[in-house]
Amino acid sequence: MIKVIKIGGNIVDNPLLLKQFAKDFSAVPGMKILVHGGGVMASQMQKSMGMVPQMIEGRRVTDEDTLKVVTMVYAGWCNKNITALLQAEGCNAIGLSGADGNVIKAAKRAPMPVNGAMVDYGFVGDVTAESVNAGFLYSLLERGITPVLCAINHDGNGNLLNTNADTIASSVAMAMANYRYRSPREVCCRCEECTHCSDDGRLTHLVDLVYCFEKDGVLYDKDDDSSVIAELGREDFENLKDEGRVADGMIPKLTNAFRAMECGVDKVIIKHARNLHNNIGTTLTRE
Amino acid sequence: MIKVIKIGGNIVDNPLLLKQFAKDFSAVPGMKILVHGGGVMASQMQKSMGMVPQMIEGRRVTDEDTLKVVTMVYAGWCNKNITALLQAEGCNAIGLSGADGNVIKAAKRAPMPVNGAMVDYGFVGDVTAESVNAGFLYSLLERGITPVLCAINHDGNGNLLNTNADTIASSVAMAMANYRYRSPREVCCRCEECTHCSDDGRLTHLVDLVYCFEKDGVLYDKDDDSSVIAELGREDFENLKDEGRVADGMIPKLTNAFRAMECGVDKVIIKHARNLHNNIGTTLTRE
Repeated sequence: MIKVIKIGGNIVDNPLLLKQFAKDFSAVPGMKILVHGGGVMASQMQKSMGMVPQMIEGRRVTDEDTLKVVTMVYAGWCNKNITALLQAEGCNAIGLSGADGNVIKAAKRAPMPVNGAMVDYGFVGDVTAESVNAGFLYSLLERGITPVLCAINHDGNGNLLNTNADTIASSVAMAMANYRYRSPREVCCRCEECTHCSDDGRLTHLVDLVYCFEKDGVLYDKDDDSSVIAELGREDFENLKDEGRVADGMIPKLTNAFRAMECGVDKVIIKHARNLHNNIGTTLTRE
Repeated sequence: MIKVIKIGGNIVDNPLLLKQFAKDFSAVPGMKILVHGGGVMASQMQKSMGMVPQMIEGRRVTDEDTLKVVTMVYAGWCNKNITALLQAEGCNAIGLSGADGNVIKAAKRAPMPVNGAMVDYGFVGDVTAESVNAGFLYSLLERGITPVLCAINHDGNGNLLNTNADTIASSVAMAMANYRYRSPREVCCRCEECTHCSDDGRLTHLVDLVYCFEKDGVLYDKDDDSSVIAELGREDFENLKDEGRVADGMIPKLTNAFRAMECGVDKVIIKHARNLHNNIGTTLTRE
């Protein structure tokens, strides 16, 4: 089984929480991949340099100077700091941008209409499962190395691109779920860890995708932190949307998550990072 | 053969020279490792954030804020930019700090006397050949992946440390020269690419260390750029020092370089990056 775990700014930007998370993440057994954001720190850095962060629909407009800042913050400070903390906990982590080992090649986003106006997001990239070099990630996992991915990718033409970390997490999870590896025994082990691909005798891993965010899970009542929905199916999600109970950033997050489950990911769980080792959180179901 | 090539700020901080270098470096055949600095950009970034860079004997005093800046600049912008440019040239590069895959573990420098006063350099690390995880670097090289190392390392306890890029280059070259790998054929190929280690039947690679800097090589007359010394032995070096012909930063660079040759490195060449594919430069000799 492979766990793809995504953490956001609430953990990355808080040294105490990050240290505890490094401990908890290192204790997750088996193959795992970490994807992290770091947006709050990027905005702070921009301001300290006299720049004005520009966000449209929650996405950062990324001109040349902004690209430099987000690359420095995400791929530099956040990524290396997390990697060093994991190493200290005995987890052999390797921090990667998409350019490293050509692990994720993104496509530069073309100018697009947003609320009736054309918006050029600049050096912003979009990724899909097909963008991910699953073979390279698998070769690291196989040797006990844990990839730590930041939200900076490349276009293959020498340009770096700023990408959404949630989308990286779901794309990586889908790519790993569909990656067929050859077992050293060349036969299916039939353990619960893997499923057999009958067409070429190769195996795939079960992949869980865990989104850590600032709440304990998807809330039924957004003002009541204890109203965590334990299991959420696609139909429930549509109903909650109609009732206005899920809104804003939660809608693309869940839409992405359900898509991942349709494309091979076994399980998606939405929870707070502090609950990595307990059952508190929302598990998406196929019903 | 493995080539370890080090570039400094004059290339890293210049987009046009860097692009040309990426082309030239990618065309170097066989196994290779790139080590880069980036000090000029780090100082600029510090100034743009209202900080005052503090250098003692050419080394940056690295407090917590400075560590953040150098990590952002070296491991973030410089390292990922170089990696993306190499990928665009068809070189499958992977950017690494010492924390990544635990590739270099540095020791924090204790406060030391400099010109009669005790100096605490802060988050500054020292590395030796023993600090380098040559096995991991070799496993990448073996799969056609080119490591790109920045000057940020870790101490194994969760702290990042700022390290001198010249020392990283010589330490990596020494470590690779002494790394004994098992040939897939389990016998010595006796080609000129490798030398046989008789004790356990494993092989070592010949390792060349190339220091690229702003001059065409070691100059006999520092005011005459055409006075490049083609071959330089240890005794010549001592004489040039006595005559005051080499001074300042060149002395530790050459001392390091001669040490590398005593510790297994086959050849050390000092040249300008634009001459990567020709013979202009200074080759150190054993005489």
